Amino acid sequence: MITLLTDFGTSDYFVPAVKGVILTISPNTRIVDLTHDVAAQDVHSAAFTLGACYRDFPAGSIHVAVVDPGVGSARRAIIAEAGGRLFVGPDNGIFSFVYARESDARVFHVTNDKYFRHPVSATFHGRDVFAPVAAHLALGAKPEDFGAEIGDCVRFEIPQPKQVGDGAVAGRVIHIDRFGNCITNFTEAELSQSRIARSTRLYFGGREIRQFGAYFAEAADRGELFAYPGSAGYWEIALWRDSAAKLVNVRCGDEVILARE
Amino acid sequence: MITLLTDFGTSDYFVPAVKGVILTISPNTRIVDLTHDVAAQDVHSAAFTLGACYRDFPAGSIHVAVVDPGVGSARRAIIAEAGGRLFVGPDNGIFSFVYARESDARVFHVTNDKYFRHPVSATFHGRDVFAPVAAHLALGAKPEDFGAEIGDCVRFEIPQPKQVGDGAVAGRVIHIDRFGNCITNFTEAELSQSRIARSTRLYFGGREIRQFGAYFAEAADRGELFAYPGSAGYWEIALWRDSAAKLVNVRCGDEVILARE
Amino acid sequence: MITLLTDFGTSDYFVPAVKGVILTISPNTRIVDLTHDVAAQDVHSAAFTLGACYRDFPAGSIHVAVVDPGVGSARRAIIAEAGGRLFVGPDNGIFSFVYARESDARVFHVTNDKYFRHPVSATFHGRDVFAPVAAHLALGAKPEDFGAEIGDCVRFEIPQPKQVGDGAVAGRVIHIDRFGNCITNFTEAELSQSRIARSTRLYFGGREIRQFGAYFAEAADRGELFAYPGSAGYWEIALWRDSAAKLVNVRCGDEVILARE
Repeated sequence: MITLLTDFGTSDYFVPAVKGVILTISPNTRIVDLTHDVAAQDVHSAAFTLGACYRDFPAGSIHVAVVDPGVGSARRAIIAEAGGRLFVGPDNGIFSFVYARESDARVFHVTNDKYFRHPVSATFHGRDVFAPVAAHLALGAKPEDFGAEIGDCVRFEIPQPKQVGDGAVAGRVIHIDRFGNCITNFTEAELSQSRIARSTRLYFGGREIRQFGAYFAEAADRGELFAYPGSAGYWEIALWRDSAAKLVNVRCGDEVILARE
Repeated sequence: MITLLTDFGTSDYFVPAVKGVILTISPNTRIVDLTHDVAAQDVHSAAFTLGACYRDFPAGSIHVAVVDPGVGSARRAIIAEAGGRLFVGPDNGIFSFVYARESDARVFHVTNDKYFRHPVSATFHGRDVFAPVAAHLALGAKPEDFGAEIGDCVRFEIPQPKQVGDGAVAGRVIHIDRFGNCITNFTEAELSQSRIARSTRLYFGGREIRQFGAYFAEAADRGELFAYPGSAGYWEIALWRDSAAKLVNVRCGDEVILARE
Repeated sequence: MITLLTDFGTSDYFVPAVKGVILTISPNTRIVDLTHDVAAQDVHSAAFTLGACYRDFPAGSIHVAVVDPGVGSARRAIIAEAGGRLFVGPDNGIFSFVYARESDARVFHVTNDKYFRHPVSATFHGRDVFAPVAAHLALGAKPEDFGAEIGDCVRFEIPQPKQVGDGAVAGRVIHIDRFGNCITNFTEAELSQSRIARSTRLYFGGREIRQFGAYFAEAADRGELFAYPGSAGYWEIALWRDSAAKLVNVRCGDEVILARE
């Protein structure tokens, strides 16, 4: 099984070209779209989305992720082997959530162009490099067949909540979903529901969050922000049938402050 | 075969997480997307869309529909067996068009959590409840394995045209498609084309419809509204290469009046 | 394998109905979406998109393309056999890029209604004609089983660059992708990168293009337009992380002038 995550959108020939190349090489491979609607060139958002769902796929899956502002330049193409899965994409940090979670990651620099679609264009490595590489992996080629193992792959730090004095902790919004729900980097373990309810205050976009719960329908005051432990393993801040992100004009990276009383 | 209908959108990890869970449990199941672009929490629109196409799928298909404002609350998860197919989703009326069409519907309350993905989140039953339940159905589990049959499932009334005096009949717009075509609840049988042409008048959004036909290219005056028997079995009102819904600022539920001369 | 290209969008029952019909007739057929987000009734855009990727699919693939303003009218349904593939759709020019590239095209008028879904609606031949025809082709029916070969199929001319005097050549924008990159009809062969750099000038939307290169990251001045040989085989004009089409307010069909010094 091959999964695809890109910022190609779904209105052009980009995604079908990738699928056609894969299926020409490996006709029996199943292809599953993660999403093609990552904001253009937003590697961080792609990394989060991949991190939030790759473990739901069967072991042995091949995950192709192509959000690639550096296509054609010297940035490397890589295969990462981690957690019993394979990841194929540009070496620009797109697998950072995978590296953070899987302690066994090995990364290979893809250089063996016998696996590429020729001629290799300078602007569409999704079709010409990553698709055929993934298809050959699906047929049984090994990561080391494609190039040498490397130890210096690009990764960005996943932001962690930090002590900021007076017992307060500063977290961040690490993702905003299509509903405008804001995913913070406070994990369920760090901020259990009971601790929230009793003795903590949460500030976000200049407002205090006054409602906490387990699911949307618990929000009693539906015009007010609401915090709950989200399905990706992090606390989220939402607004009943509306966009929390728009209400407080928040962006990825903005702070969420947790203060103890 | 499992089909998926949600309001999850296609830009987040929601849909791929559902697919990954299904394919981990039942690797040989084919998954077909109905749509993931139902307006957020619009159960009526989801019910219409499912009703308009489930019969085009092979008998034995498993149709998962998750538009679920009450996720995490006491609303029930159900399996409906009807018309030789299975339907999996929340008990909020999303299968109302199915219940209306299939006289043999039996509904089961899903309570057996051995079929769930654990831990079950309070906000993402699509991944944690409905996906694994559908996958186990695909593997051969029976609806009664998941919980007891119930007789009080939630259903909303499909609006029917009503006599309003002077021989006039009031119908409603029950769906607006992405082109802005307005689907009414007048069926082809109720309002045959010949009867329209000869002796009836149709009013909609403060305007009289003056053009009737079988297909779009028949609309002679392309700036005027046009009525035709649509492919879902209902009369529709459209505007040539433009949105009828925007022209008259109509919404789902608005009246369409049929008057006899 | 059947691929689907339409302007149906992905929010309605249209695409799943097509898939359901195919899978009911031919349960083992793999279906791949090209795109369903072609601008409504834009046959030229559909033709370009199909032309840009059909060759990446395996020989023997069946490509269904339904952008069909004339649905229900006298326009013909056709099957084209070309380049070792089959194409199914309305006879409105949607296969023009295929005809231009494949010298062996034979076209058949689909009239044998035993292959249709009945009753045939007047507005949804995607479901009622093209889907079942494609499914029967997948099962092994021959194009000639569906109707007679014809020699007068509709095709539009693919615009070619033209001499306009003083050594200048007038090309056109033939497609704008979702990033706002403008695909011209200058092929790589006609306008090699070296010739551009040395002795030619390129004008577009009232501006001179001053930057040429092979890939996006080469654009030194990121607020300026940039030309490069695109992955569909044509020169494209782009703007770093922004829309070239919006910057200069260009539309499909607009001129791009190449002048020799």
